[in-house]
Amino acid sequence: MTIRVVGFDGDDTLWHSETRFHVTQGEFRELLGRHVADADIGARLAEKEMQNLAIYGYGVKSFTLSMLETAIELTQARIPAADLDVILGWGKRMLTQPTELLDGVEETLRTVAASHNLLLITKGDLFDQESKLARSGLGDLFLGVEILSEKNEDTYRGVFTRRGIDPKEFVMVGNSLRSDVVPVVALGGRAVHIPYQVTWEHEQVPEDMLPKEGWHRIEKIAELPAILEDL
Amino acid sequence: MTIRVVGFDGDDTLWHSETRFHVTQGEFRELLGRHVADADIGARLAEKEMQNLAIYGYGVKSFTLSMLETAIELTQARIPAADLDVILGWGKRMLTQPTELLDGVEETLRTVAASHNLLLITKGDLFDQESKLARSGLGDLFLGVEILSEKNEDTYRGVFTRRGIDPKEFVMVGNSLRSDVVPVVALGGRAVHIPYQVTWEHEQVPEDMLPKEGWHRIEKIAELPAILEDL
Repeated sequence: MTIRVVGFDGDDTLWHSETRFHVTQGEFRELLGRHVADADIGARLAEKEMQNLAIYGYGVKSFTLSMLETAIELTQARIPAADLDVILGWGKRMLTQPTELLDGVEETLRTVAASHNLLLITKGDLFDQESKLARSGLGDLFLGVEILSEKNEDTYRGVFTRRGIDPKEFVMVGNSLRSDVVPVVALGGRAVHIPYQVTWEHEQVPEDMLPKEGWHRIEKIAELPAILEDL
Repeated sequence: MTIRVVGFDGDDTLWHSETRFHVTQGEFRELLGRHVADADIGARLAEKEMQNLAIYGYGVKSFTLSMLETAIELTQARIPAADLDVILGWGKRMLTQPTELLDGVEETLRTVAASHNLLLITKGDLFDQESKLARSGLGDLFLGVEILSEKNEDTYRGVFTRRGIDPKEFVMVGNSLRSDVVPVVALGGRAVHIPYQVTWEHEQVPEDMLPKEGWHRIEKIAELPAILEDL
């Protein structure tokens, strides 16, 4: 069956995201380091984010709230409010800075869109993701946008049902083995993995849990059209 | 054309939401009042929420971030971090407390679901709304869930297209004239307005902007099945 629909992940597949979190995490360690020199600030923040995931979900607002909570906890509430205000400002900066596309994204999407239906399938914060897509200038290339609170077999199955997609005619393209490859291949679809320079720990998958076939790995998105022709 | 699909708003239509914001706003005024006795705290918070809407969107996380920013601003950063930690705790409480259904919701949804397809169409934070629906125990009654960053003609048109709905066979049920009635009637659908005891100022609509026909107002959701039979 030929591929009719191509799903694209957004964060770190089409536009930079994780590097921005890394920049802010660095600033956070520096700011907190002035108050608690010997704490493992980065690890404590990561722990707090995981604890809060079930309450806050993914996204910049959740990250900002976890930074604030970590800062208060680590300093035993001795941190001045002016420093917490700086953290609030980082969150706003992340939510408003221009969407920075990865190399080759625009050309590749235009090429693929000429022969396939494109869906943006991301997780995270609805408002933030829609805003990023709007700022990217790529919105018109997509037939639709699906923002999921998690990417797993159930939520992909929901997308297929809602949009009348046979998994056999679907390819998912993304940087996360856990979110973009494993669940799609399990449902009978195919996947193309494009690793990003930084992978969030939470998205790692042990090598032996990876499907044996049904997916490819490429170095950069510009290689995608050739792969699609071969499928 | 008979009604085939009934859309329901969630917040303050199926479950209580605004009253919870009111409770937290009261606590916020009380907490801040200890630091800045003469400020109009409620008005300043409402102003901040509106300013931040374009950056944060709707929802409890946005509200929490706006409370923190208002607290720091109004006290000129003199507020202790321990008080800001209390505010963070209010946000978490709002995100985790049980979903409290309005009177008659469960029976009415079961009745309507026997003869119609039900869609939940809400705005706000994706993660929070999905979590509330799951905690409500009503998820199985809905054929689908649409969480929109705004409810306007464009976003409702998107729902109709995605789901193959003719507006003439659709009724939207909700507590907001601005979000649940006006855009749906403008697209040729019908609407049922059920006022809630408290309406967020942002959702008010001047009387002369209301459509002349195509919608009904009822006092409580238990009246809905009779209205649907008449349409």
